[in-house]
Amino acid sequence: MEDASAPTSKKGAKKAEAKAKKEALKAQRAAELAAAAAANLNLEDDPAKDNYGNSQTTTPPFSKDAEEVEIRSLDESYNGKTVIVRAWLQNSRVQSAKMGFVELRKGGNWNIQGVVLASEEEPIVSRRMVKWITSINPESFVAVEAKVKQPLEPVKSCRVSGLELHITKCFVLAPAPTMLGMTLGAASQPIVNFSDEKAQAGDVDAEKAAKPAAETTTPAASMLTHLDNIAMHKRAPVQQAIADIRIQVKRIFRSYLEDRGFKEFEPPCLIGAASEGGGNVFRLAYFGEEAFLAQSPQFYKQFEIAGGRERVFSIGPVFRAENSNTPRHMTEFTGLDVEMEIKHSYTEVLTTLEGVLLSIFRGIQERCADEIETVRSVYHSEPLLLPEPGKEVRLTFAEAQKLLREEGPAEFANVRDDEDMSTPQEKALGEVVRLKYKTDFYVIDKFPETARPFYAKVDDAGTTVGDGVRVTNAFDFFIRGQEVLSGGQRIHDPAELEDRIRAKGVDPESGGIKEYLTTFRQVGVPPHGGGGIGLDRVVAWFLALPSVHLAAYYPRTPKRLLP
Amino acid sequence: MEDASAPTSKKGAKKAEAKAKKEALKAQRAAELAAAAAANLNLEDDPAKDNYGNSQTTTPPFSKDAEEVEIRSLDESYNGKTVIVRAWLQNSRVQSAKMGFVELRKGGNWNIQGVVLASEEEPIVSRRMVKWITSINPESFVAVEAKVKQPLEPVKSCRVSGLELHITKCFVLAPAPTMLGMTLGAASQPIVNFSDEKAQAGDVDAEKAAKPAAETTTPAASMLTHLDNIAMHKRAPVQQAIADIRIQVKRIFRSYLEDRGFKEFEPPCLIGAASEGGGNVFRLAYFGEEAFLAQSPQFYKQFEIAGGRERVFSIGPVFRAENSNTPRHMTEFTGLDVEMEIKHSYTEVLTTLEGVLLSIFRGIQERCADEIETVRSVYHSEPLLLPEPGKEVRLTFAEAQKLLREEGPAEFANVRDDEDMSTPQEKALGEVVRLKYKTDFYVIDKFPETARPFYAKVDDAGTTVGDGVRVTNAFDFFIRGQEVLSGGQRIHDPAELEDRIRAKGVDPESGGIKEYLTTFRQVGVPPHGGGGIGLDRVVAWFLALPSVHLAAYYPRTPKRLLP
Repeated sequence: MEDASAPTSKKGAKKAEAKAKKEALKAQRAAELAAAAAANLNLEDDPAKDNYGNSQTTTPPFSKDAEEVEIRSLDESYNGKTVIVRAWLQNSRVQSAKMGFVELRKGGNWNIQGVVLASEEEPIVSRRMVKWITSINPESFVAVEAKVKQPLEPVKSCRVSGLELHITKCFVLAPAPTMLGMTLGAASQPIVNFSDEKAQAGDVDAEKAAKPAAETTTPAASMLTHLDNIAMHKRAPVQQAIADIRIQVKRIFRSYLEDRGFKEFEPPCLIGAASEGGGNVFRLAYFGEEAFLAQSPQFYKQFEIAGGRERVFSIGPVFRAENSNTPRHMTEFTGLDVEMEIKHSYTEVLTTLEGVLLSIFRGIQERCADEIETVRSVYHSEPLLLPEPGKEVRLTFAEAQKLLREEGPAEFANVRDDEDMSTPQEKALGEVVRLKYKTDFYVIDKFPETARPFYAKVDDAGTTVGDGVRVTNAFDFFIRGQEVLSGGQRIHDPAELEDRIRAKGVDPESGGIKEYLTTFRQVGVPPHGGGGIGLDRVVAWFLALPSVHLAAYYPRTPKRLLP
Repeated sequence: MEDASAPTSKKGAKKAEAKAKKEALKAQRAAELAAAAAANLNLEDDPAKDNYGNSQTTTPPFSKDAEEVEIRSLDESYNGKTVIVRAWLQNSRVQSAKMGFVELRKGGNWNIQGVVLASEEEPIVSRRMVKWITSINPESFVAVEAKVKQPLEPVKSCRVSGLELHITKCFVLAPAPTMLGMTLGAASQPIVNFSDEKAQAGDVDAEKAAKPAAETTTPAASMLTHLDNIAMHKRAPVQQAIADIRIQVKRIFRSYLEDRGFKEFEPPCLIGAASEGGGNVFRLAYFGEEAFLAQSPQFYKQFEIAGGRERVFSIGPVFRAENSNTPRHMTEFTGLDVEMEIKHSYTEVLTTLEGVLLSIFRGIQERCADEIETVRSVYHSEPLLLPEPGKEVRLTFAEAQKLLREEGPAEFANVRDDEDMSTPQEKALGEVVRLKYKTDFYVIDKFPETARPFYAKVDDAGTTVGDGVRVTNAFDFFIRGQEVLSGGQRIHDPAELEDRIRAKGVDPESGGIKEYLTTFRQVGVPPHGGGGIGLDRVVAWFLALPSVHLAAYYPRTPKRLLP
């Protein structure tokens, strides 16, 4: 999406530029096709002509006894065998007229060195074939037949360093263009510019001047360039690693809960009322009425409890129509939500959610060590400090504010126990807690009711803070001073709920609220509580990424809906 | 959502009716509270007064040595023990002033008989307590302390038939109202009226006259009543069973694919262009631009392949702005989507997807036998006939049409091989296939290109049908004559793709299409294919439910967005 506020003249220029680019691309493609055709025509006298070329089919003429194998599966047992490998070709290098090297990559971050050596004996590899293979455009998808050999010394630049592939056949199944919109090298640099605005002339220089990683001088690209080259963005090992970590976060979330009797359900995205704060909600025309996009599955989780489902969770999109163009915000993100019956105390909920998150953090530290290392090689970060089992840090809101007043920066010397924390306060508290308790993960419990929505249950003991504000059985979880989870006990008694709705200045008869309240009146709803986690934020902040957009597959911002 | 086309006078009447109902509800609730208060006042002289009542806390005064247990976990090993059980109370019955029975239900479909017997010895149970417990409103949430005993003879009406609970303490944690909007008995009847229109006077009679199940005379309720009483709808064992089956379908889908190296990803719901048929797409205002709700994750699955993710799947909501008010349609449903690189042939995709679905069907037949029985006791159906392993039925589209012409109803004697099938044709074919091949599950492959979208790859061999129409490497899967999956090989060459886009009359420069095509031009994209499954339909049609709305948690139709 272009910025709607951009002046028309700028738009026109952009359009012309885009058109010129397109023409150039077309011409380039035509040239490529012509070159390929010419190459094919001249092949007739090449004794190796059947061993390479562009393949129109998925099944080039490989030897029948060659085994198909993935690069990640190659180990010593393959030494001496003839294999077929499908992969992305990258980094080719001509050593001499008789010899060349290519790197083959697949499965995210698995690569291996390919060697092409001219040979007049079977299997024949001609010099022309060496030249052809080393001229393949990087990021083309190829299928090669090769003999697996041990290199003279380990190939440091490749993950499979103890083996190399001596290529005897090579077919391009899907050619990349001569000029990539963004090279893998550029895609693998840390992004420094996350703005959705097209860069100005000055910015481009600034971008190029951004500190490159030690080993390379490839310039970094902006997030905009990354997303405009979505396939290359995704192919970068760092993004593959982030995606794989994200998958594990979801898996651990799900398995931890399923092991404890939680049942998955799908809340709706389309809802008939803007039930949670009308300001940040997307509205759409719906067959003559109006529909809204869910800002959270809160009411639906509670309906599941009312419906006797006992313990539920959901994983799905939620939407915020917030015009915030920051690396912390997206208009669509993935919510991990939990709701459960309470037997004795809301701390059952707190303990369950704390268990989920600690299990996620410990789980990915263990399962994704390689992926974390890959991410850190691009976006450096300190490992997330976790509390020792049994030494989890849980502070009440009042305790946290006291800590901030006493041990935080001077500007927070007067924070109140009955007013919600600001983002800078949260960050500052994160640092104080890290120093004092040696953990980046902690819980703040018993938020004042002024800082919570109407469904938050007030503390049974009637505790108050500040100017007589009651505290709630509600909590937030933090990592590195940033909130990743919000939860607590919900009101299950309809009379109490109606009182709180009115006290918050909400009309109990308004759309959505009415149906919500009705459900509690229609049946007895057991005591319950739960919480919601932002998946994108958990991934981004665990890895201390510079933007939550890096953790999303297709980040949605006020200015970006494509691709 | 009310029907927008309803005349205003009717709306006014409805409003008045709703208001009257609400007043009645309020009055009723006040009466209940007064009665409860009165009962509590008179308790002082009751020696059992501490053993029952309404509990304001989650932790009533139970004996310290009593073990908390779920009804589903009760087995002979508990005989003689004192336990605490939290459950929904249903079906109470007074035997005498000294004795009463209640049924306690939890965990979907697990119930057990509770006995309340007056006793002057410890633990004391007074006659007043017997009366109070048997007067608790059905569907209240209670916590009881009880001694587990073996009944004189098995309790046929309960799933835990070999044990009963002799209640010594009973507290109501969440009272249900005296009058439920829909009783559990009504909620457990088969729904016959799935219309979203409020029933007219005549219809009500029709609804009441609907054939009730053999053992009961409880009248059935309409889908409208069910959804207006969402908690009761969900509490009905049949809906609990359907929800549990749905969970297993998702789990098997996910684990089957993960075991084969597929990686989950989340496609966006908000997209910047109506890329697949503008007619049935929801549009919304998006910060001065327009956004659309995804009709499928098709393009994004392919971007994942272009991005080197190899094999991916997604589980998430998709949206159709189709004004179809039928039991087959919803405006929001859950898509199970798969996309994978192809090595040799698109049949790899077909085989994988066939494997997924057969694994799902066999898996739920095995894992959910009890749940299927529960559903069948309400909605009778024949078990789904599955092919023996190795005898899967795969017909080409032309073969299927020939079969329909030759062995189907006379009206289909002239169906063509180059035109898409209609829904009645599909249903008729399902019956022919069942008769001939003894299976309800089968694949139709090689659809003519007239019946497929532009991204469907045409058969390499150049096969044509009918008036020279080419066939595609695309297929549909059917159960009971209804399509549950659509898939095939996609075009991966940008030039071929552009040709097909133009041939289908689509502008390659139009929004969404342009970015889609660009991605194929920017990088080499390997051969790939995939398919999409409608989760709601798989569940509904496996169970032969009368409406797909029964398989959804919160069905969305043109006329319903709440709750």
